[in-house]
Amino acid sequence: MANLIWLAPVGSIAALVFAALLIIYVLKKDEGSPEMMKIASAVRVGALAYIKRQYTGVGLFFAFMFFVLLLLVWRGYLVIFVPFAFLTGGFFSGLAGFIGLTLSTQAGGRTAQAARFSLNQGLKVAFSSGAVMGMAVVGLGLLDLSIWYYFLNWYYQAKVVAGEILEPQKIQYITSTMLCFGMGASSQALFARVGGGIYTKAADVGADLVGKVESDIPEDDPRNAAVIADNVGDNVGDVAGMGADLYESYVGTIVATASLGVAAGLGTSGLTVPMVMASIGVIASIIGTFFIKAGDKAEVATLLRALRRGIFGTAILVAGGAFFVIKFILGSQLFNIYWAVLSGLLAGVIIGLSTEFFTSSRYSPTRCVAESAKSGSAITIINGLAWGMLASVIPVITVSLAILISYFASGGGENPNLGLYGVAISAVGMLSTLGMTLATDAYGPVADNAGGNAQMAGLPPEVRRRTDALDALGNTTAATGKGFAIGSAALTALALIAAYRNELNLIIDKANLSKVINLSLLNPAVICGLFIGGVLPFLFSSLTIRAVGRTAFSIVEEVRRQFKEICGLMEGKAKADYVRCVDLCTKAAQREMIFPALIALASPLIIGLVFGVEAAAGLLTGALVSGFILAITMANAGGIWDNAKKCIESDEKAKGSFAHKAAVVGDTVGDPLKDTAGPSLNILIKLMSMVSIVFASFVLKNSLFK
Amino acid sequence: MANLIWLAPVGSIAALVFAALLIIYVLKKDEGSPEMMKIASAVRVGALAYIKRQYTGVGLFFAFMFFVLLLLVWRGYLVIFVPFAFLTGGFFSGLAGFIGLTLSTQAGGRTAQAARFSLNQGLKVAFSSGAVMGMAVVGLGLLDLSIWYYFLNWYYQAKVVAGEILEPQKIQYITSTMLCFGMGASSQALFARVGGGIYTKAADVGADLVGKVESDIPEDDPRNAAVIADNVGDNVGDVAGMGADLYESYVGTIVATASLGVAAGLGTSGLTVPMVMASIGVIASIIGTFFIKAGDKAEVATLLRALRRGIFGTAILVAGGAFFVIKFILGSQLFNIYWAVLSGLLAGVIIGLSTEFFTSSRYSPTRCVAESAKSGSAITIINGLAWGMLASVIPVITVSLAILISYFASGGGENPNLGLYGVAISAVGMLSTLGMTLATDAYGPVADNAGGNAQMAGLPPEVRRRTDALDALGNTTAATGKGFAIGSAALTALALIAAYRNELNLIIDKANLSKVINLSLLNPAVICGLFIGGVLPFLFSSLTIRAVGRTAFSIVEEVRRQFKEICGLMEGKAKADYVRCVDLCTKAAQREMIFPALIALASPLIIGLVFGVEAAAGLLTGALVSGFILAITMANAGGIWDNAKKCIESDEKAKGSFAHKAAVVGDTVGDPLKDTAGPSLNILIKLMSMVSIVFASFVLKNSLFK
Repeated sequence: MANLIWLAPVGSIAALVFAALLIIYVLKKDEGSPEMMKIASAVRVGALAYIKRQYTGVGLFFAFMFFVLLLLVWRGYLVIFVPFAFLTGGFFSGLAGFIGLTLSTQAGGRTAQAARFSLNQGLKVAFSSGAVMGMAVVGLGLLDLSIWYYFLNWYYQAKVVAGEILEPQKIQYITSTMLCFGMGASSQALFARVGGGIYTKAADVGADLVGKVESDIPEDDPRNAAVIADNVGDNVGDVAGMGADLYESYVGTIVATASLGVAAGLGTSGLTVPMVMASIGVIASIIGTFFIKAGDKAEVATLLRALRRGIFGTAILVAGGAFFVIKFILGSQLFNIYWAVLSGLLAGVIIGLSTEFFTSSRYSPTRCVAESAKSGSAITIINGLAWGMLASVIPVITVSLAILISYFASGGGENPNLGLYGVAISAVGMLSTLGMTLATDAYGPVADNAGGNAQMAGLPPEVRRRTDALDALGNTTAATGKGFAIGSAALTALALIAAYRNELNLIIDKANLSKVINLSLLNPAVICGLFIGGVLPFLFSSLTIRAVGRTAFSIVEEVRRQFKEICGLMEGKAKADYVRCVDLCTKAAQREMIFPALIALASPLIIGLVFGVEAAAGLLTGALVSGFILAITMANAGGIWDNAKKCIESDEKAKGSFAHKAAVVGDTVGDPLKDTAGPSLNILIKLMSMVSIVFASFVLKNSLFK
Repeated sequence: MANLIWLAPVGSIAALVFAALLIIYVLKKDEGSPEMMKIASAVRVGALAYIKRQYTGVGLFFAFMFFVLLLLVWRGYLVIFVPFAFLTGGFFSGLAGFIGLTLSTQAGGRTAQAARFSLNQGLKVAFSSGAVMGMAVVGLGLLDLSIWYYFLNWYYQAKVVAGEILEPQKIQYITSTMLCFGMGASSQALFARVGGGIYTKAADVGADLVGKVESDIPEDDPRNAAVIADNVGDNVGDVAGMGADLYESYVGTIVATASLGVAAGLGTSGLTVPMVMASIGVIASIIGTFFIKAGDKAEVATLLRALRRGIFGTAILVAGGAFFVIKFILGSQLFNIYWAVLSGLLAGVIIGLSTEFFTSSRYSPTRCVAESAKSGSAITIINGLAWGMLASVIPVITVSLAILISYFASGGGENPNLGLYGVAISAVGMLSTLGMTLATDAYGPVADNAGGNAQMAGLPPEVRRRTDALDALGNTTAATGKGFAIGSAALTALALIAAYRNELNLIIDKANLSKVINLSLLNPAVICGLFIGGVLPFLFSSLTIRAVGRTAFSIVEEVRRQFKEICGLMEGKAKADYVRCVDLCTKAAQREMIFPALIALASPLIIGLVFGVEAAAGLLTGALVSGFILAITMANAGGIWDNAKKCIESDEKAKGSFAHKAAVVGDTVGDPLKDTAGPSLNILIKLMSMVSIVFASFVLKNSLFK
């Protein structure tokens, strides 16, 4: 049972070095013609405006929360490190998003330029940019975790030496503190996913509406500032948003696993396993990127196979590596935990395949919806919704089975805590390939932007065909990426809920309270929590969906104002004020996210304080179950409508037909569902659990309902 | 602590006598002109065809299930009475539906004729017909319960005398047997709500499509057999379907309460309270119908007030009566259970008001959606969906609070079983006004049919204005009725789940098994059950929604065939074959319901047998939480779209406008959601619990996962 924890910082550094190399590779690429550079630069300027405004909001929020956490420290509810861990968690998540977003706006134009030579060249640039996001997330996540682990270990070791605490207590103190650390990552993700999600779809809808309102300028015209806001939005949603979401899952899962490991009596090994597994995942992902190769004459099918080779190759490498990790760290007696890793890995793959089946135009669900568009928009909507609901079945059953298998394989039958540790480990298994899955994911918007760039710069048709092919590939990987993000969010949230129960028991023990935590389904507080928790995702979705509409109108008004007030803009002599448009939309999106965010932050506290911690646990579980299902339904329904439209458009003559119009209605309905409401639910379920953990001591001691 | 159980048969007979008087009253009314009689007769013939086909399917199913239950009796898993109780439960529910449906098809034309004199006259006829449905349901439900109670009491008393069982065990044997009795009512409701729900919307959509396909005949033309099928469908859905649904809730709640009462140590009183409360509710409902009076010059607002007076008056009478029931039967020591009754009553009222707020065109949600129709169909859909999701929040919180209040007011803090009894009693409280709420509910389709009749028979405009007003009133009461049905289904299902846990414990005790039922949220079997249960309502909705589309096409084909093959039909010389059209559509609907029905029946068995009874309990709870929320969301979204369309149509000039077309799309999308998928979920959550209870012993003893 060797102490291999040093592998964690090594993996982190490997990821960051590899990311740096990729950045250099991408930046060295040719930016293309002056026209292309101009367009790319406009997107970059817009993205910077977005980042500036968003990080201002984030900064204010973090300052406020830091103060709140300090208050809790002062009143003795938290240890002194928590507020600082909160800050670093937010900082590193934000840094990863900044790196990913900045590079992806650099890569869009370069991908278009590379696509002039071949499909493969374009893929290489776009994928490298995506890989930077993946590596930045896992690298910085592991870095943050490693720093805190080494620091806390040093600090509590000194206490052990001083005789203030016992040696076995040390690891418990460490994991308890690190558990709260996910709160910073969660808060950052809240802004990136919810605020970003509202922004990205509002910009999209706004840009479309402007085309209709101001009828004398065509779509995708650079004079229209909303077009740039829309391009920025693609990067904001699927690069920065997805990155922050998965960063949260990544670190949240690792710290929850560590805490459950201590409860299961595994001591330091409980923490070492997830950290080292993550590190193995980094190495596997780096190797995996080299599997993604195709000849210069490769077609789309070949490229898809190449991407698949990368993902599956990484998964197989992780499976192999995990074998040794479990063997060396936990020993043969606990080797069965290895099956938990495999079940998590496999569940991730199955969820991805299921999403692909439902949302790809090569299979019957999307084709059926495309076919039904001939009967009008109502039938298109009904069918898409019905298929979307159906699409939630396989992922939910897959996750359920993964939970059962990991629990019992890990020995939960005899020792429930060990079983819960196994469940958390399966989440680690699923997320260990993150470097690679996030890379294929974040590649999509780069390809999308490349297409926009090629279109606006008027590149030759064969280049646009190539960027279109890259884009189509990106749609498939983005859809599977969404499934992966939701599935891993569900497992993460479950691990956090289990860790929450542990924390409650620890607090009760320490404070010598007489309370027994009763989480039975027939405890009315639990039932009440389940119901209210179950309705929260519906409330949250309702609010975010309507926010998109309102924000979109603010964009329309701004563009209209620019045309009126900027002399020469219509004639192409003056430049549109992209920055102001992006800034305004970001501001509106942040205003709109306040109420949903308050619900996510306040509901576990209010329910816990009024109805007790059991109701809070019920709330988290109810939100997890209904949020998971609703999020997959929305992601799939949206994906189906999107690709049904594309399927109809693949026949040039069908554009503008009755069926095409119906499909456009479906796509418009699906947009806020799949890109705003659905992904926001990932955050809701994790953030609520995180808040419950951080405030556990406060809520437990001040609840009206003891 | 007087034995007041004799009040139950008295209440039952009072309800049935009152129903008979109302039937005579309605049938005595004038049927109007020969033209009106011809149309009404066509609907009647169609309804008979529907009943015949449906009851054939029901008969086959009951024969099969009877055989299965006999097998279980033979193997020692059930007592001999269960298969017979199953049959009577189904029989009385079916009889109530038959009476209600038959009369409502008699009342449609008569309402139109009465509306020639005044609005009030029309209301009286339509409401009387609705009241017959209400009285038949409560009367026959109580009758069935009373017969079984007296029979079982006699039977087990004999065993006590013979010394085979002890006196205190007697009531336990009685309630255990009666609990299984709800299975028959559930199965009948499955056909009426799921099969009926698919039928009614398929006929609706089919009739609309025919108008488009066969462009040379106008809408609502009696030559089109689908029009009659559509008229039949209105009665099928909101009269027979709603009746069977609430019959199931009514008897299910009473038997679940009785079983929980025994577990709480209340003995016979535990059974007497819900039976007598139901009886009090009958008397209150009969009195309540006399509150519904308005002058002959009354306008819609006055009529709505009159209906409200009836509902609130009944609720107040029940509240008063329950005071004495609790006082005399349970005594002062347990008097606090009275607060459970009140919380249930109040919750029913609040859910109704919430539904009215969201779906009535007098308030902002529906107006907002109507306004957004100006921006096209996509925005209409998105907004309606968002508002529908929001509409689920108040009912869910209301039910949660009712659960908590009833539990703790009843003393659940000290004795959890008493708390669960209180929760069940609150469901009884909510359902005790059923005679009245169902009356206002089943009145809607009668008014709707009256409108159709007046339209087709070409009655003068002022009569049609009156029937339209009655119809609008009916839409409001139908929407609140749906909310009530869902809310009560949720409470019933919860009571059934609690009763299920009790049954499991009883079986374990009797068989001396070593199992301890662990329903903790952190038991992975429970979590797995919650997830799979949570996804079932989505799967179920997906299947029923798509079934509507397929069935609608079978109607279109049949009408097309009739025009082709029946000579002289187009010229109006020959009659369309209504019976065949209705029969065919009913058959198709029944075929389509097989798969969803199998899911409802088989999933608790499969999950129980494979993953154990704890997973089954999780399954029921997951389905309850997500089904309840999804059902309200769909009911409200559908209601909002429907009324937003009506709101736009209230301006004659807006018909055919861009906004109107968008609103029609919304209405079409909402139809299968609110009338097929949503109500079907009520059945899903109750039937699954019922199946689990009946098969509890079998599953517990044969589960792979002990």
